[in-house]
Amino acid sequence: MFEIVKNGNVTSAKGFIAGATYAGIKSFSEDALDIAILASEKPASVAGTFTTNKVVSPSVTLTKSRVQSGKSMGVVANSGCANTCVGDQGLKDAEEMAHLASKQINVPENQMLVCSTGLIGVELPMALVRQHMGNIHLDQAAGPSFAKAIMTTDTVAKEIAVSIKIAGKEVVIGGAAKGSGMIHPNMATMLAFISTDAEIEPDILKTFLKQSVKESFNMIDIDGDQSTNDTVLLFANGMSGVSFDELDSVDSRIFQEALTYVAIELAKAIVRDGEGSNRLIEVFVTGASSEKDAKNAAREIVSSTLVKAMVHGLDPNWGRIMMALGKSGVDFEENNVDVFISGIHVVHGGCSIPYLADAVVSSMNAPEVKFEVGLNAGKFDSTAWGCDLTEEYVTFNSAYST
Amino acid sequence: MFEIVKNGNVTSAKGFIAGATYAGIKSFSEDALDIAILASEKPASVAGTFTTNKVVSPSVTLTKSRVQSGKSMGVVANSGCANTCVGDQGLKDAEEMAHLASKQINVPENQMLVCSTGLIGVELPMALVRQHMGNIHLDQAAGPSFAKAIMTTDTVAKEIAVSIKIAGKEVVIGGAAKGSGMIHPNMATMLAFISTDAEIEPDILKTFLKQSVKESFNMIDIDGDQSTNDTVLLFANGMSGVSFDELDSVDSRIFQEALTYVAIELAKAIVRDGEGSNRLIEVFVTGASSEKDAKNAAREIVSSTLVKAMVHGLDPNWGRIMMALGKSGVDFEENNVDVFISGIHVVHGGCSIPYLADAVVSSMNAPEVKFEVGLNAGKFDSTAWGCDLTEEYVTFNSAYST
Repeated sequence: MFEIVKNGNVTSAKGFIAGATYAGIKSFSEDALDIAILASEKPASVAGTFTTNKVVSPSVTLTKSRVQSGKSMGVVANSGCANTCVGDQGLKDAEEMAHLASKQINVPENQMLVCSTGLIGVELPMALVRQHMGNIHLDQAAGPSFAKAIMTTDTVAKEIAVSIKIAGKEVVIGGAAKGSGMIHPNMATMLAFISTDAEIEPDILKTFLKQSVKESFNMIDIDGDQSTNDTVLLFANGMSGVSFDELDSVDSRIFQEALTYVAIELAKAIVRDGEGSNRLIEVFVTGASSEKDAKNAAREIVSSTLVKAMVHGLDPNWGRIMMALGKSGVDFEENNVDVFISGIHVVHGGCSIPYLADAVVSSMNAPEVKFEVGLNAGKFDSTAWGCDLTEEYVTFNSAYST
Repeated sequence: MFEIVKNGNVTSAKGFIAGATYAGIKSFSEDALDIAILASEKPASVAGTFTTNKVVSPSVTLTKSRVQSGKSMGVVANSGCANTCVGDQGLKDAEEMAHLASKQINVPENQMLVCSTGLIGVELPMALVRQHMGNIHLDQAAGPSFAKAIMTTDTVAKEIAVSIKIAGKEVVIGGAAKGSGMIHPNMATMLAFISTDAEIEPDILKTFLKQSVKESFNMIDIDGDQSTNDTVLLFANGMSGVSFDELDSVDSRIFQEALTYVAIELAKAIVRDGEGSNRLIEVFVTGASSEKDAKNAAREIVSSTLVKAMVHGLDPNWGRIMMALGKSGVDFEENNVDVFISGIHVVHGGCSIPYLADAVVSSMNAPEVKFEVGLNAGKFDSTAWGCDLTEEYVTFNSAYST
């Protein structure tokens, strides 16, 4: 029902522009973009979802409060410094960064949002921010620069756009995201920015976003930790001339589906680029007795350290899947469980069935490993995504701040 | 109030005997003991705590049901096979193993308990169990053999005993335990056996055990996963002639303290021997507004993958401690938090204070790293223990079953 836009990104939708600069926050290298602005040419509706961590960056606090108005002209984001655990200075710096960005692009200050990502516990180097903000100039071609500027330990930029046709008119949804450590269900260390030229009132936009986030960013895990800065923002500026003013129409369902696709693709890109990760793990739980159970089971399995390690080692040790399922607290009977590894049936009725171990090992030797777990307890399904746990992850995370 | 018994073990208390044999379940090597019996010369009171995983070994199911009588003559344990996820055969095998053990030492079958640990999803090789059970002969000197026979990926046997004096009479509490992967709060992949020659009624024994487990085995984490077989058993045979028949007497408090010490030492030994672990992490949370909050905060910090990795890398990246605290869901104000790393004050009022980074790095280069986190929100404290996350852990767990 939607088409993928070639080289699509966060400025693919009509009327969205971006720009980025080097400021020296993230790295000495002058190639390293670390402050960026995404803006709409016309005032846009905005909706956001935010980290549930109690320790929260003042950048999130400010943005969360400004998103409540439902209107925004854009967002400024920096990488290299999380602006977190820095006391009262944090909110002052977030406010000043938003102020500088709004002045630079000439929009009302209270319609400028702010996001930060990077090291916790050090103050934003505001001298650098003040010095370099003036270098940011916006245009429609700079979507990819925006995606690069928000990267921290990411190895690739993450961006995508899709288009749908409604009554002969085109609506585009584009996005950019960054990961990659501390990703856990319920949104952690990750920023995602999604823009669309559809016209949508803030309340309805919020419902669209919530539904898509539930199926995407809230279903991924890298290491079970949660960051203090995570934010997903969705802007809708109406410039396509197509309006979605109710949730249950056929058109709205097409829009929701396209938005969820964008969100899932960005979420999977984050997981695929997880620190030290070699393989994407997809866990598909079927036959749960409630939606909540389906989601909890899928997340618990994909988050298990031992399941992650077995994928890294191509070890079809399905007992670990049963163990993770067992500790998830969901409703099922052990002797009704089926498990498939990359399509090969290995467990039926809760017991091992004779399978060719070498074939399962071969099937796991792929960039994406899929576990299907049938609970046979009801009619609810869910999918979660994670990545394998590798020696590189440990090496990487043993020496991050020093 | 208690003394450590030199070379103390699970048969140090009066009237406890043990024996073990090689059966070929765990390894081809004939040095590898893998079936063992611990028994009391007189009928003993017994109490147990068990895994909360919904996928549970029939060995646990059988033992849990027999422990309800409050009386037992002993337990048979095997390593190498968990007897889990094997359908109806599992309960039959657990019952037969208990039957063979009870016949071998001539005690009533329903007073013989059974524990299994090892690989999930394969049946117990009962032919080997039948063939070798007859080799087990019990004596008081075989405590260390019992501790060796229950080991799986453990690199050292874990055993201890302490003695207390009550009205001139000596009471001994001894124990043995095994880890070591899949250890998480609420008791996972671990077996512990504690024996005492005190006289204690089953109901009171249960309360003593529950209190000690809460402070020990439920406060440790290796990798956030939970096994299907975990069991802690406490036997009390009364042969010291000292009785604890009420919970709040001075004597009972001395006993409780000694029992908790034994449980904590066994729990710490399990963590210290965690798969691939190099360092013990102790997290001491002070000033929580409830006991539950203190325990949850300590466990959340010690379980964080990123905290574990930073200890491995001697990286004083205290932002990760704040992040883990923030996602624990406990009550605190960010700007009241203090953090000490190995006694060095690094965070006050939720912000970094100037500290000599090299000194903190040096202090972390020790077998035990201690984080003290002051919430300044109330009067409850708690301690949890974990281990660092190393490349060896990943390598080890990438190839366990194959």
